[in-house]
Amino acid sequence: MNNFKEKVVEKWLEIQQNICSALENADSNGETHFREDRWERPEGGGGRSRILENGQKIEKGGVLFSAVHGELPPQTAKMLGVAGGQFFATGVSIVLHPRNPFCPIMHMNIRYFETDGGRWWFGGGIDLTPHFVDEIDAKYFHQQLKNVCDLHHPDFYAPFKMQADDYFFIKHRQETRGIGGIFFDYLDEKSGLSKDQIFDFVADVGGAFAPIYSHFLQKNHLLPYSDREKRWQLLRRGRYVEFNLVWDKGTKFGLETNGRTESILMSLPPHADWTYDFKPEPDSPEFFTQSMLVKGKNWLE
Amino acid sequence: MNNFKEKVVEKWLEIQQNICSALENADSNGETHFREDRWERPEGGGGRSRILENGQKIEKGGVLFSAVHGELPPQTAKMLGVAGGQFFATGVSIVLHPRNPFCPIMHMNIRYFETDGGRWWFGGGIDLTPHFVDEIDAKYFHQQLKNVCDLHHPDFYAPFKMQADDYFFIKHRQETRGIGGIFFDYLDEKSGLSKDQIFDFVADVGGAFAPIYSHFLQKNHLLPYSDREKRWQLLRRGRYVEFNLVWDKGTKFGLETNGRTESILMSLPPHADWTYDFKPEPDSPEFFTQSMLVKGKNWLE
Repeated sequence: MNNFKEKVVEKWLEIQQNICSALENADSNGETHFREDRWERPEGGGGRSRILENGQKIEKGGVLFSAVHGELPPQTAKMLGVAGGQFFATGVSIVLHPRNPFCPIMHMNIRYFETDGGRWWFGGGIDLTPHFVDEIDAKYFHQQLKNVCDLHHPDFYAPFKMQADDYFFIKHRQETRGIGGIFFDYLDEKSGLSKDQIFDFVADVGGAFAPIYSHFLQKNHLLPYSDREKRWQLLRRGRYVEFNLVWDKGTKFGLETNGRTESILMSLPPHADWTYDFKPEPDSPEFFTQSMLVKGKNWLE
Repeated sequence: MNNFKEKVVEKWLEIQQNICSALENADSNGETHFREDRWERPEGGGGRSRILENGQKIEKGGVLFSAVHGELPPQTAKMLGVAGGQFFATGVSIVLHPRNPFCPIMHMNIRYFETDGGRWWFGGGIDLTPHFVDEIDAKYFHQQLKNVCDLHHPDFYAPFKMQADDYFFIKHRQETRGIGGIFFDYLDEKSGLSKDQIFDFVADVGGAFAPIYSHFLQKNHLLPYSDREKRWQLLRRGRYVEFNLVWDKGTKFGLETNGRTESILMSLPPHADWTYDFKPEPDSPEFFTQSMLVKGKNWLE
């Protein structure tokens, strides 16, 4: 393995470890623990999956690391627009489903990819799916992401925010999955940053996850709620399932290419509901949330 | 509209009506009622969706009729292996999710398709997804389907049973959705039957649904169960969601081509669960069920 790959793997593992420690603290001052499964990919590489179920504040969540290599499957090569040959890919992925409906679902992914012939790029994203949209929380979230972006490049936040709106979109519902965030892919030297500078940026994206999520847990986990809010949470989780199984490229790719199913599907909620043609009452908080699930909103205003 | 299309539409509407009446009786001696939504497709045609939620024995179910026509979308034409042009398609689809985990989920679809230039075919299928496999029930189910097939053609059941095993397969779990049933597509005069004879066969498949399901409801709805069986039911429903959203061609096609989302997704259960890497205890009924979810079993033995 060359030095750069090693450096990325080491950093990703450190990010996974730091996030798990921070989340165990945020969940229960360290009383709950992630369970760890290591797995190997027959074709090369493997991963370290960490899963938390039945935490005090986090109902279900996963923080996954993987580093895989081997022959590029033809359909992937085509999707990536590269010739076949050997590839190497490593990433960290997180999805957390909280108990309290006033705490949001949050997702992050950071990844590094390289192929034969020296092509390489980074990708990643963070997005937030509140069961109930709160504009102050939404502004806080986007401000944190903008801060991370601005630290590295003055022109990252705006296009990455737009790409998140486009990516985290449930086409058959014509609604966004949540309030978006940032999403980027194929990030290389054409961005104006060097390989090491991009690496630093992506590592900082990884580092931003735990403080933001801990903030929301801390702030909202004691807010009282009734069956009504819980029911709405379960319906919103149903939409989350729809996005992940129907539209999410990573999930589709993983399931179609014989990835580790239990790791890929850690993103699914512990419980989810579907009610035929449910329509929130006009002027309700549920109605307000639904009306906010559109592309192109400037949450920083 | 030509006479044959009219005849099919009339029969499908009658089948939908008969199934709803029979299910209302089976559910509650007619105390519960399907709700009806009529909808129109901007590009041509429409449908009549009937949905039952919170029945006495049926927790959620839909019996859908649609008849649509218009210009064949390019990707569909490609999928069907025909040139573009006008098409007409009409079908009835059903999925039922019972309350009692000892009652099975059951699905049926019958459809008729024609394109410009006189090409036409029928398709359809019935399959059963027991939360707990019972070999006597499984034998009963397959015997009913074989009886319907044998009445029309001595060589229908065996290949259609095999096609159901292949179609209702959750590839990323390497397990069948349930105990299969029958599945057929592109059924035309090459089968050895005339157009009218095939129509009669498919109508009989439609007619078989309600008696079979009523039998299972009647037989099993009072069987006692505890939280444990309910939890397993919710996990099996999770797998049902996975199949429908990831692999089912009809669902994928509908969602990607701007079909009526609420009708397409009536197949999803009212509640579903996902538990990371759940493994049933050895020698438990759940373990037995899991071991039965394989292709190629002869349930009639």
